[in-house]
Amino acid sequence: MDSRLDRIVGFCRLIDREKFIRRRTYLTDGERLENDAEHAWHLAVMAMLLEEYADEKVDMLKVVGMALIHDLVEIYAGDTFAYDKEGLKTQKERETMAADRLFAALPDDLAARFRGLWDEFEAWTTPEARFAHTLDNFQPLMLQAATDGRAWKEGGRRLSEVLERNARTHEGSAGLWDYARENFIRPQLEKGNLENDIPDMEIL
Amino acid sequence: MDSRLDRIVGFCRLIDREKFIRRRTYLTDGERLENDAEHAWHLAVMAMLLEEYADEKVDMLKVVGMALIHDLVEIYAGDTFAYDKEGLKTQKERETMAADRLFAALPDDLAARFRGLWDEFEAWTTPEARFAHTLDNFQPLMLQAATDGRAWKEGGRRLSEVLERNARTHEGSAGLWDYARENFIRPQLEKGNLENDIPDMEIL
Repeated sequence: MDSRLDRIVGFCRLIDREKFIRRRTYLTDGERLENDAEHAWHLAVMAMLLEEYADEKVDMLKVVGMALIHDLVEIYAGDTFAYDKEGLKTQKERETMAADRLFAALPDDLAARFRGLWDEFEAWTTPEARFAHTLDNFQPLMLQAATDGRAWKEGGRRLSEVLERNARTHEGSAGLWDYARENFIRPQLEKGNLENDIPDMEIL
Repeated sequence: MDSRLDRIVGFCRLIDREKFIRRRTYLTDGERLENDAEHAWHLAVMAMLLEEYADEKVDMLKVVGMALIHDLVEIYAGDTFAYDKEGLKTQKERETMAADRLFAALPDDLAARFRGLWDEFEAWTTPEARFAHTLDNFQPLMLQAATDGRAWKEGGRRLSEVLERNARTHEGSAGLWDYARENFIRPQLEKGNLENDIPDMEIL
């Protein structure tokens, strides 16, 4: 019996639960909310498609790896809604505890590698982490636009909230953030699907 | 206006439809069938976790890329059930036409890169393609075992069908195929969830 392989396969089976964690963004059919696994898949493919828009040279395998695993901790910590102020206060602590528990299921060397990748994403200090975060914000904005801001409308979201949540989106790719403001956010403001609570500000 | 970026983003939005394509394998909760995007995500993470079990040295970014995009053609060709003999006859032709249409949505250079990756996966002749195919078969076997062969039981599947479908699974990793036979297939045979129609054969 190969107990190392048993542990890795056990982890592979465990992370199937990522598919049960619902996000707050509708898929392009507007019928159903996205789950974490679908979101991670989408980010990873988009990373490969949009590599040329990264503002710094990136190691694509590392970006894709971050995209694939960045939400695994939610298997234990749950999804923290981007606009849930109370949840956001405890998010870091809850997710760090979840990471301790989750990656301990792997053999030590793999645990260290995957934990390192997640820590690097969270630290937001390398080109790869910056670009992965940009995509992590760009993708749901794209889905909002594709569903005419359905989740924004339902949640009564305001522009100031969306901008606060995207305060660092430009760091990985100024071009993608410009594109998102112009093509994803502005049309929803104009249609009234996102409330413009800072009309004096020339934000767009 | 950046029409190149428009085209890439249009493709990113289009492939959201991968999330609507249902497979015939139950998730580990046994409640719901998996979709193509979830499956692709799972394969990609498993590729990173199981790299050491590949029988040949692989370029991991290429394996992960294949895992992520190998089912995109199903957006136009639909999912062909692994045990649908009629569907399998036309699968290659339908999927090639779908690939022509799908990748044409991208700028030429990206279309060529993604089409090349898909063609390489389909050709099954490189170490990366072999390992990606092994994972593509290993992952649903893992889910079958995790749900006590629910989809096998419901479909009245026989061992000979499963072995035929997995005739080349060993090519990317003899170790993973051995593991799958021993840990995923054999217990379901013993429990009667998979019909043993070749009891004389020492297959396991």
